[in-house]
Amino acid sequence: MKQLNNLIKDIVNRITANLREPDMKVGEYVDGLIPHDSHSIYYAFYALTTEHPLSFQFTHSSLAGTYFLGKCEVELSVVYKSDIRGDELKKKGTVVKVNGADLELFQDERISIRHSFLVKTLVHNNSHDAENVEIFRILNTLSLHYANIHGTSVEGCYIAPFATVDLCTCRNCIVGDFSYVQAGDLSGERIEPGRIWIRQPGVFELNYQHDRNVLDKFISMDANKRPKGVFMDFCESHKADFEPVYNAAQPEISQEIPDTSFVSHYSVLKGDCAVGENVLVAQRAFIDNSRLGDGSNAQENCYIINSNYEGMNVTAHGGKVINCDLGRKTFTGFNSFLHGTEDARVKVGRNCVIMPHTIIDAVEAIEIPDGSLVWGYIRTQEDLKNNTIALEEFSKRNSLSLGRMSFTGDAEAFVNGFAHRIEHILEENGAYFDGSPETAGHAQKTQEVSYNTVQAYMGGEYKGLCPTMLIKPLTH
Amino acid sequence: MKQLNNLIKDIVNRITANLREPDMKVGEYVDGLIPHDSHSIYYAFYALTTEHPLSFQFTHSSLAGTYFLGKCEVELSVVYKSDIRGDELKKKGTVVKVNGADLELFQDERISIRHSFLVKTLVHNNSHDAENVEIFRILNTLSLHYANIHGTSVEGCYIAPFATVDLCTCRNCIVGDFSYVQAGDLSGERIEPGRIWIRQPGVFELNYQHDRNVLDKFISMDANKRPKGVFMDFCESHKADFEPVYNAAQPEISQEIPDTSFVSHYSVLKGDCAVGENVLVAQRAFIDNSRLGDGSNAQENCYIINSNYEGMNVTAHGGKVINCDLGRKTFTGFNSFLHGTEDARVKVGRNCVIMPHTIIDAVEAIEIPDGSLVWGYIRTQEDLKNNTIALEEFSKRNSLSLGRMSFTGDAEAFVNGFAHRIEHILEENGAYFDGSPETAGHAQKTQEVSYNTVQAYMGGEYKGLCPTMLIKPLTH
Repeated sequence: MKQLNNLIKDIVNRITANLREPDMKVGEYVDGLIPHDSHSIYYAFYALTTEHPLSFQFTHSSLAGTYFLGKCEVELSVVYKSDIRGDELKKKGTVVKVNGADLELFQDERISIRHSFLVKTLVHNNSHDAENVEIFRILNTLSLHYANIHGTSVEGCYIAPFATVDLCTCRNCIVGDFSYVQAGDLSGERIEPGRIWIRQPGVFELNYQHDRNVLDKFISMDANKRPKGVFMDFCESHKADFEPVYNAAQPEISQEIPDTSFVSHYSVLKGDCAVGENVLVAQRAFIDNSRLGDGSNAQENCYIINSNYEGMNVTAHGGKVINCDLGRKTFTGFNSFLHGTEDARVKVGRNCVIMPHTIIDAVEAIEIPDGSLVWGYIRTQEDLKNNTIALEEFSKRNSLSLGRMSFTGDAEAFVNGFAHRIEHILEENGAYFDGSPETAGHAQKTQEVSYNTVQAYMGGEYKGLCPTMLIKPLTH
Repeated sequence: MKQLNNLIKDIVNRITANLREPDMKVGEYVDGLIPHDSHSIYYAFYALTTEHPLSFQFTHSSLAGTYFLGKCEVELSVVYKSDIRGDELKKKGTVVKVNGADLELFQDERISIRHSFLVKTLVHNNSHDAENVEIFRILNTLSLHYANIHGTSVEGCYIAPFATVDLCTCRNCIVGDFSYVQAGDLSGERIEPGRIWIRQPGVFELNYQHDRNVLDKFISMDANKRPKGVFMDFCESHKADFEPVYNAAQPEISQEIPDTSFVSHYSVLKGDCAVGENVLVAQRAFIDNSRLGDGSNAQENCYIINSNYEGMNVTAHGGKVINCDLGRKTFTGFNSFLHGTEDARVKVGRNCVIMPHTIIDAVEAIEIPDGSLVWGYIRTQEDLKNNTIALEEFSKRNSLSLGRMSFTGDAEAFVNGFAHRIEHILEENGAYFDGSPETAGHAQKTQEVSYNTVQAYMGGEYKGLCPTMLIKPLTH
């Protein structure tokens, strides 16, 4: 245990030094957060497939409960019950246009985690850092429960619970609870809890600020710097369903799945479910009594309960959809919480975009029309006025101020950007698979997968740390 | 699959070239022996402890179902459902006396398996090869079901089912079914099935030859070069009991075990069992309705059923003890089959040595007196005449011919050698543990163990082969 304790102290020091925020006591967030034995009890696991570049290098780290796919190196870090999913890393030879220059990748891209402490964090996509096109870097960073580090290199950052950093770079930033940032190269920013900030410099900027009093009910830090609220309670309440999955050496999916779809062995599919063609259900997704139409997907930490997806529905990482009916091609953004009840179902039409970090907590039946942009905090049909707009109407605007949301700039570029991204996500996930290799995506490419496990030392000086490991693909 | 098929072809060629035995068609023993899917379905697993040097290097190999402990490299090999147990490898700095010279180990010893095909084989102890004190080498070798490669470097050999090579070196040898060899440096030998051959050149030599007609009932090769007979049926009949163990991510022992004892998570302990202090039950041992007195052990592939061990009883790898009562310090040798029945129990007194590869298949109650040396094939009390002798009496002899056994040389050296070895085994296994580090052995040192799994590629060209892996200990 001694070496792990030393490591944690060292990580806290590094993060503290890099955050440059005297008021932020990093140790308070970290010390005692993970029960000592948990570092050695829970196994990490990594996927082997024939379709993804493979390379793992683990050095002097605790990896308990974490899933790895693709190319990743972890050094001097604690990565706890997280998902490090490198299936969208850029390949060698790819040319990336950055600031007008064409950069060709000299090597396959890899995720590099160093001097960081990640808890239940999702890492996915690829580096959007012009300075490091081959390295998706996570350095000197603390990231807490259900945060998403998505296509964003982070250095010297604190990413709070349920926060998302998306397709940007963050250096020395504090990203508050349940805030969402997709705003270019950020340095020294302090993002308030519950702020949704989407900015394409020189093109558009969108801001939404969740009411702090409302947000506190869903997610906040208690006096001991531990996350609390509805979101945490919700996730905790489904933990037991995952136990049989993690207890099995080779967990099996009990339900019938079409050959073109992939349901991870490390997901939960319970109750009366129907899974269509070209569907992807990622590890740590939870599907209960729901219908996933053709081309739909559920990413990590998604919960889809008593709901119907008509088809081609993306549920981004951490999306929760309960007692909802989603029309075709309606998209649910990161960590959104769409919470209908039996008596107050939420019906969302077709081709809607539910923005990341939207909360719908229905007290009456709600129906959202086709082609809507949806954001903010919605409890009633009446709330739609200030929290939705028709995408078509919005795309004609160059500014909008509605409730707690404000937008300036080229709304058409914003809308087209979202539409393009959703198409890209569908393609990447294999939603359009027609049997040809070109249309295959995650749902098809992850089919032939095996999982290896990594457990830490169970005792002695190194208790809780994993041995040094290097895993490389076979070649001949 | 293509690469695995190529690998198997290549291994067969290498073994054929090295065996130098035109009549031996290696391919017939190997082709189709392992169902194709089994290479990818079954996971290998390796142990992490704080007490054993650790280093694994796996290159271009199928490792399905195999257990690894210690330091081991496997290259271009198929190692199937085997046990590669490096907890008695020599450590760096150890001085070995060989042929009068003092050899100091430059590095920790490691097991090196290359161009070999091992099935359900036990590899244990350390190299007794003067030319390679740092490397326990298994090269260009085919080893089949329940063979024991014990402290014996083998190159270009065929080790048949249930054969044991013990504390010697074998080059270009064929070691027949159920034969046991501990006879110094061997080259080009053809060991008949069922031969027990113990020789210390210039000191003594013991030979026993099982009757081929009797042996065929227990173990022989069918027309398709697959092992058949009572031994195989017996092992197969207990396979289902191991399924829950292998199906669990972290198998648990359901029974109460003293803190000084170790029962592997990958063993089966069923029925009404009692486990004393300082007991070791290795992975793949099977204990049913039996009592293991203080200091006893059950090594890999042991089956102890409806039996009582008074204490300090060693059961060497592959020993089977059914409906028996063994007195204190009675030793059961490799692959021995002590088969009493409810109506015909086998009672063995104290301080007996049951030689490796002894078969007792009782048709009536049998009682063997204290201090006996036991060998051969025994069905009745009458059979003891030609298959046992008092150790004390024997040690005064310089020759003996009894039934199918013959001995020449210094019997006292033989008896003392066995006594010394049994003491050494008890020490190594921690049977004498009194709380001090010096007396700790496998039972205590393996306590804090975690297991990592390795599965092969599930599809594509490399299906059935594992990725390239390098696992090293942490240092700081």
